[in-house]
Amino acid sequence: MKIRYAVGVDLGGTKIKIGIVTDEGKIVKKIAIPTLAEEGVEKSIGQIKKGISTLLRGNKNSITGIGIGSPGVVSLKKGTVENPPNLPGWVKVHLGKIISNEFSIPTFVENDANAAAIGELIYGAGKDLKSFIMITLGTGVGGGIIFNKKLFRGDFGGAGEIGHVTIDHNGVKCNCGSIGCLEAYLGNNYFIRDVKEKLNDHKDSKIFQLVNDDLNNLTPQTIHEASLLGDKFSKDYINYLGITLGHGLASIVNILDICNIIIGGGVSGFGKPLFDAAKESLKSRVLTSLKPRIEILPAKLKNNAGIKGASSLVFYD
Amino acid sequence: MKIRYAVGVDLGGTKIKIGIVTDEGKIVKKIAIPTLAEEGVEKSIGQIKKGISTLLRGNKNSITGIGIGSPGVVSLKKGTVENPPNLPGWVKVHLGKIISNEFSIPTFVENDANAAAIGELIYGAGKDLKSFIMITLGTGVGGGIIFNKKLFRGDFGGAGEIGHVTIDHNGVKCNCGSIGCLEAYLGNNYFIRDVKEKLNDHKDSKIFQLVNDDLNNLTPQTIHEASLLGDKFSKDYINYLGITLGHGLASIVNILDICNIIIGGGVSGFGKPLFDAAKESLKSRVLTSLKPRIEILPAKLKNNAGIKGASSLVFYD
Repeated sequence: MKIRYAVGVDLGGTKIKIGIVTDEGKIVKKIAIPTLAEEGVEKSIGQIKKGISTLLRGNKNSITGIGIGSPGVVSLKKGTVENPPNLPGWVKVHLGKIISNEFSIPTFVENDANAAAIGELIYGAGKDLKSFIMITLGTGVGGGIIFNKKLFRGDFGGAGEIGHVTIDHNGVKCNCGSIGCLEAYLGNNYFIRDVKEKLNDHKDSKIFQLVNDDLNNLTPQTIHEASLLGDKFSKDYINYLGITLGHGLASIVNILDICNIIIGGGVSGFGKPLFDAAKESLKSRVLTSLKPRIEILPAKLKNNAGIKGASSLVFYD
Repeated sequence: MKIRYAVGVDLGGTKIKIGIVTDEGKIVKKIAIPTLAEEGVEKSIGQIKKGISTLLRGNKNSITGIGIGSPGVVSLKKGTVENPPNLPGWVKVHLGKIISNEFSIPTFVENDANAAAIGELIYGAGKDLKSFIMITLGTGVGGGIIFNKKLFRGDFGGAGEIGHVTIDHNGVKCNCGSIGCLEAYLGNNYFIRDVKEKLNDHKDSKIFQLVNDDLNNLTPQTIHEASLLGDKFSKDYINYLGITLGHGLASIVNILDICNIIIGGGVSGFGKPLFDAAKESLKSRVLTSLKPRIEILPAKLKNNAGIKGASSLVFYD
């Protein structure tokens, strides 16, 4: 069968990453350019056009479509992007129309977390699954729900906010305005702050050597490295994160009766110890009839997951 | 238009309630017979048949179908009921086939909580809604999800377990084996126990007069009555239940992007004070873009909601 190609646009607050991707999820060419969000909506749209033009030079005829993963609320029908948090001034932008008119190529826009879920469905760990919950652990905790091979978008495309499931309604404040959201425990910045605090009582942790006694250098990678060096505090902390993740996932599985979980994003790099703790904790908390079906899988789209996820929109129907 | 009729069977652990219901949700005739669950599966199935026969005498030709709301996990395609908690011995019963063969009338079986949601969709508060979350507050906290006018069942029909959303992962033990489920705060028996404990510090509550100083007589109705008499403790407690309910619902709304909530079941009898507190608390906790769409409505199917919900399966496609 002939290989088909799509353009994937990963629209971020500071950078736009664009790639040409095969229908098997391989990137054949890619670039990254600044979003220049501070120079206004028109400027950023110009950057997207410029980036796609550069990439398409000499390749245009072989492109099946353009997929764009954008922050904010995306209306599928209209291809509009509304109020993305990191793109000031984008009140309501008809991004799909603008790009398809410019290049005369079918263009699909979707929220970036949803695009990541579709990416796993089309190219990745969800290829052989009928339904799964995708969760991305990074600065925020994002997600997407695939049910019967389709993205579940809810009434207005906002479904799948896995990070804003409550685990403790009297717990830690979340930036979303609520209290005790999963993101307030598993989000990068939240747990780095928590680790810094807890290290006051663990002065013997190997983390101090790894950061040259300056906790400003502390990243999730440091905790990972320390754990691999056998540091008890770091191992315990990763285990605690896994357990907490399992508690959040239990609510979602009980509501949806979808038992396959795919976990991606930088923080998922903690690997097996995180996954094992999450699976055990999740199993211990879901309803009895669901326990035997629980599976947790690592995401397959790692590097350039944003570009690949966006491109997958073209091959998804 | 000619009125159509359905039989609705509300299969409970102790009683089977059966009614003939119009396609507008009016019960024209009904009976209740003992389930005799302790005498085995065959006996109970016999009771269902007997009940339907009695009711159908002289009416059979005008019946469009039979709907059965059953506890346990129900497979729609096969019409089987598996392991309902209150019906010992019902490992896997082909209830749909058995009943349709007996009466030569199309028969539809669904989990009782799901049937209640479909009941609200077909006859009740959800008639004009595209999507809603149904929650039934009683001994347990049950639920069902209607999305785009269809029941969302998840992979194996277990979706909608609203009662087993976590609100505090370090909280109160739930009978399901997990910790901090919504049901462990809003379920009848749980909060009655909690109120009894808290009354130790509220000896001036009007509740004591209403139960003749014997807390064994305490029911949700007592708390309701006391609140109507101006009892501060009772009013505060109903407010607390509403707030807690809102916290649980926030997780569900954030996951599903479904913002209409219909609340039924005996405990919803607390009425406006409960609903108002729940709505305010829910609004304060969901993501910003969802806040303006939040609506909480009382269920319309009150008495005989079980029979009506079951009968609605016949008019649902």
